[in-house]
Amino acid sequence: MSSMDIDLDSRIPLYAQVEAVLAASIADGTYPPGSQLPNEDALLERFGVSRTTLHKTVRNLIERGLIEIRRGKGTFVTQPKITQELTELSGFVEDMQALGRHPSARLVDKQVLHATDAVARQLAVPAGTPVVRIQRVRLADGMPLSFDETWLPKAIGEKIINNDLETEPIFSLLEQKYDMPLVEAEYRLEATCANETVAEALGVEPGSPIFLIERTSYCAGHQPVDYEKLYYRGDQIQFVTRLARRPKS
Amino acid sequence: MSSMDIDLDSRIPLYAQVEAVLAASIADGTYPPGSQLPNEDALLERFGVSRTTLHKTVRNLIERGLIEIRRGKGTFVTQPKITQELTELSGFVEDMQALGRHPSARLVDKQVLHATDAVARQLAVPAGTPVVRIQRVRLADGMPLSFDETWLPKAIGEKIINNDLETEPIFSLLEQKYDMPLVEAEYRLEATCANETVAEALGVEPGSPIFLIERTSYCAGHQPVDYEKLYYRGDQIQFVTRLARRPKS
Repeated sequence: MSSMDIDLDSRIPLYAQVEAVLAASIADGTYPPGSQLPNEDALLERFGVSRTTLHKTVRNLIERGLIEIRRGKGTFVTQPKITQELTELSGFVEDMQALGRHPSARLVDKQVLHATDAVARQLAVPAGTPVVRIQRVRLADGMPLSFDETWLPKAIGEKIINNDLETEPIFSLLEQKYDMPLVEAEYRLEATCANETVAEALGVEPGSPIFLIERTSYCAGHQPVDYEKLYYRGDQIQFVTRLARRPKS
Repeated sequence: MSSMDIDLDSRIPLYAQVEAVLAASIADGTYPPGSQLPNEDALLERFGVSRTTLHKTVRNLIERGLIEIRRGKGTFVTQPKITQELTELSGFVEDMQALGRHPSARLVDKQVLHATDAVARQLAVPAGTPVVRIQRVRLADGMPLSFDETWLPKAIGEKIINNDLETEPIFSLLEQKYDMPLVEAEYRLEATCANETVAEALGVEPGSPIFLIERTSYCAGHQPVDYEKLYYRGDQIQFVTRLARRPKS
C-alpha cells in the first residue's frame, strides 16, 4: 500500500519524496519539537517504501538536524536548544531574562558544611573550614534546566541563606543587599554524565549528558566569594562565544 | 583480621584512617591515575572495617575528587583532565603544543560532498553546493582526544586535501600556504553523547560524554572559510576561561 504523498512514477527518488513529506510534517507542527516520530514499521506501512529507502530518509533527516535517535527510545524531532552567550559573568536570572524566558528556582538544600579540599581551594580557606552550601534547581519557563550547587564563605553565606532563595538571585543579594560587587569569574567547562542526584533534580535519566560549569566568582582584590557547580541539561542548552585569532607578532 | 595500617584504639575514626591510607596510596602512585581500585570485598578484607565504614571512606574520597565510580565498571583513581584555554582562536596543534603535549592526527576520510542545510548555512553557500569534508582523529601523546570534522568551500578545500593532513595543520595551510589568514571564529559549545561513529573513532563506548565544539572560522571581511565539529572526549578535557562582570551603568 503506497501513500498518496508518494509518486512511484516520479523522477524524484522515493527516499527524497518521503524526506520531503516528513520534513514538511515537522515544519507544519504535525510532529512538534521533542515529539516522537512513528516507529519504523508504521512509517514503512504509511509510505509503502522499502526499509533501505526509509533508512536513507532517516539518515538524511538526521544530517539536516531535523530528527535525532535516542538510544533505546526511538526517533524524535529535534528540539532547538537554548542558546546562551558565554561572554561576560552573569547569573541564571539575568541569562534567562536576556533570552526572554521566565526564570524560577526550587530550593533543594541549604546548610553549613566543612569545606572539602576542592571547595576550600576555590574559596581560599583551609580545608575543613565551615562554609555554606546551597543547592537549587533552576527552571526556564517551568522546565528544570540546571542543578546548581553554590558554596559561600560562612560569614556572607549565613546572611544569604536567611533570604528567600527561590525568588532572590544570590548575585543580586551579594551585590545589592550586602555590597559585595562581583568583578570577574573563572569558568571551567566540562561534558559529563548525570549522577543519581543530578538526574533526580533535573528529571532526566542517570547518565544523561550534562554541561558542567564550575565557576569561581571574585570581588575586588581577587577575593573569591562564590564557588558554584552548575549542572546544565546537555540536551537543552548550548553556549556561544566568539574568539579572535591571536595577532601575528 | 585488621590491617596493620589501621589502629582500632586510635581516636581517629576508622573511616578517616582508611581514607588516609588510600589517599596516600594514590599520592605515591601505588594506584596511579586511571587505575581501578581493588573491589569492595578486597578492601573490606584488607582493612578489616565494616561495609558502612568503607562506604563513608569512598564517599569522602569521591568528594575530594581522588576517585570516581564508573557505572557498572568499578571505582577508579581520577585522571586529571587536560585543561585547555578557551580565550582565543587556535588549532589543535597549537593547543597541544601550548600544553607541552605531542599532537598527531589520523586521517579517516576526505571527500567532496553536497553541503547539508547546516553546513551550507555556516559556509554561506546554497544548500547542495559541493564542499570538501575532512574527518580526522586528533591525538595527544598518542591518545585519541578529539574526532574532528572539517568542511571547507570547494575551491580552497580541493587544494587543502592535496596535502598530508596527518602532519600539516589545516590552520597552517590556510594561513601560510594559501594566504588566507584567519581573523576570528564563532564557537558553539555543547555536552552530548558519542554516537557509533564518534565512539569508534575515539575508542570509547557509545554514549560516553562528548564535549562538542562547533566552530566557524572567518577570514577578513567576515568570509567563512572553515566549519568544524570537534568531538572531544568529555572524560579527558576541560576548557577554562575568565569572564568579567558587566560594568554597572
